[in-house]
Amino acid sequence: MRLGAETTRSIRPDPGRSGFAVLDQTRLPWEIAWVRIDTAEKAARAISTMQVRGAPLIGATAAYGLALALREDASDPGLARARAMLAATRPTAVNLAWALARVARTVAALPPEARADRAWDEAEAIAAEDAAMCAAIGRHGLSLIASAAARKHGPVNILTHCNAGWLATVDWGTATAPIYAAHDAGIAVHVWVDETRPRNQGALTAFELGAHGVPHTVIADNAGGHLMARGAVDLVLVGADRVARNGDVANKIGTYLKALAARDSGVPFWVALPCSTIDWSLASGADIPIEERSAEEVTHLAGLDETGAVRRLRVVAPGSAAANPAFDVTPARLVTGLITERGLCEASVEGLARLYPEAA
Amino acid sequence: MRLGAETTRSIRPDPGRSGFAVLDQTRLPWEIAWVRIDTAEKAARAISTMQVRGAPLIGATAAYGLALALREDASDPGLARARAMLAATRPTAVNLAWALARVARTVAALPPEARADRAWDEAEAIAAEDAAMCAAIGRHGLSLIASAAARKHGPVNILTHCNAGWLATVDWGTATAPIYAAHDAGIAVHVWVDETRPRNQGALTAFELGAHGVPHTVIADNAGGHLMARGAVDLVLVGADRVARNGDVANKIGTYLKALAARDSGVPFWVALPCSTIDWSLASGADIPIEERSAEEVTHLAGLDETGAVRRLRVVAPGSAAANPAFDVTPARLVTGLITERGLCEASVEGLARLYPEAA
Repeated sequence: MRLGAETTRSIRPDPGRSGFAVLDQTRLPWEIAWVRIDTAEKAARAISTMQVRGAPLIGATAAYGLALALREDASDPGLARARAMLAATRPTAVNLAWALARVARTVAALPPEARADRAWDEAEAIAAEDAAMCAAIGRHGLSLIASAAARKHGPVNILTHCNAGWLATVDWGTATAPIYAAHDAGIAVHVWVDETRPRNQGALTAFELGAHGVPHTVIADNAGGHLMARGAVDLVLVGADRVARNGDVANKIGTYLKALAARDSGVPFWVALPCSTIDWSLASGADIPIEERSAEEVTHLAGLDETGAVRRLRVVAPGSAAANPAFDVTPARLVTGLITERGLCEASVEGLARLYPEAA
Repeated sequence: MRLGAETTRSIRPDPGRSGFAVLDQTRLPWEIAWVRIDTAEKAARAISTMQVRGAPLIGATAAYGLALALREDASDPGLARARAMLAATRPTAVNLAWALARVARTVAALPPEARADRAWDEAEAIAAEDAAMCAAIGRHGLSLIASAAARKHGPVNILTHCNAGWLATVDWGTATAPIYAAHDAGIAVHVWVDETRPRNQGALTAFELGAHGVPHTVIADNAGGHLMARGAVDLVLVGADRVARNGDVANKIGTYLKALAARDSGVPFWVALPCSTIDWSLASGADIPIEERSAEEVTHLAGLDETGAVRRLRVVAPGSAAANPAFDVTPARLVTGLITERGLCEASVEGLARLYPEAA
């Protein structure tokens, strides 16, 4: 992906393997600040303070962090200690535990003096695989945008919700990967960016798209239905937090409303995801528990004041309760299809089984 | 309606006819401040600075303002001058021009010395009629809430969007009138209040409901679909900005998304409106032009800082464009029915013709 003139990734290892840099996402979209990380403790802090966020990026950060720990102390107790410390930063993040286990397994049989380098190699592999997976999603999704472009004059208008972009992955993102691929292939695209209340992750998506030079417009989450009804959207493209075996999609709260509007106006609604997002143990989305997050995310909002400082304001008067379900489930019947690293498929048991015969 | 311990209206004429008071809505929901108005100029300022908002309340304020002007100068030129000044405050507000014309017509044939008192009488009539109209909507809508209450245990959960409450009218509001009627009749209700980005009028609705003692919970606009899918909403109740002859409803942006979700989950979706909202000249909602408002309403947001001061923050990084369509059209096919001052009807040419045979 591009950050203005520069081509980069969201995690940048030093060539000398002495550390790595990540973008401080707590300061985005207001400020581009790279944080240098040269110890496992700093990696843990970056994850727990949400300087890095997004499951794939958290996994890669933890993997590099574990490699750094092994430079200091590569003994079995040292490895166990560092792994436990990193795993405790975001206890529910599946990718985090998975990446740490993968690195630990790789070095377990090696003598201590060989472990740090091998762990670093594995962290690089994890990052490279994630970037390759997102790039593959981009290639497969590109075909959808290219066909939409062939059917009309002017830019292809794509609506997206939340941030399923490179800030949450190592590169390209999931829902954004086809958009960057299309833009880089010279197809004119324009993105309607849902602001995505209550956490306003749309501001991150807008930042990303702007940094890559993709034309885009931020809208209130309320606006998408109207835009679809008036023909201003050619394609809806979103990511997923969890996909059930039947193709039901759990994603950021509000995704379901956009899927309903897309169906009502005949707009294709596609969901981009890597295979790690598919939960083969879930028969349908009805079984997905929905996280209820803090009411303060609804009653308070952060932004930039006139002096350029980040501040927090109350936007609901004291005395009113607020509720904050963080995700909703879009039934497979409303999903035109899934875009995975292995290709496009129908959102159904059969569609997923065709792409992943070994898992279904 | 109630404001804590007090029973009041949103406009309060002095018993001695020397002026009136309105709630300063630019300071709500943060502060309850009544503004006293004793000249036509002050009435004009209250309207143009949006201390008063909502078509019916603007009309009543202008009517009282014109009566105050006639106390100073009741000549024909004086009347014409005051009327023009008040009419210029919000040029597109239909109720404003209508209320001024009604007062002017009433006093035109009278000698100057009789005009101020007669104008005040007419302003009182306009206010009383509006309150009566909203109360009638409340009575008719109450039957819907009462039947919902009879079908379940626990409070009736009602979802509303934007502010169609007493702050926009003289009393009771439109969508809120049935809610207040049910609450006052001892029916347990709980209201899900959409925050209603980008202008966050949900904060006003929450304030109103809280002042009247009605249990409520503010939610991001994104949450309603999920709540309906999981059975947490018994009834959606919204107002309208304009209703076409076939029952299509133009209302605050995002209303259409809630209507789609209601249909998908089998939740009744009702629209409350006084007859003045029906545009008999419009065959359908497809013909309703949608106002595009300032992008700053999306990129910036006002709220209360930690010191209690109202501030404005930027919530989208500079460099990203924003779009702000203010209304959308909910097709009649998604509307369970309309609640008017004359009763309930189907959202259709036939339904409206049955209630308003003289207009259809």
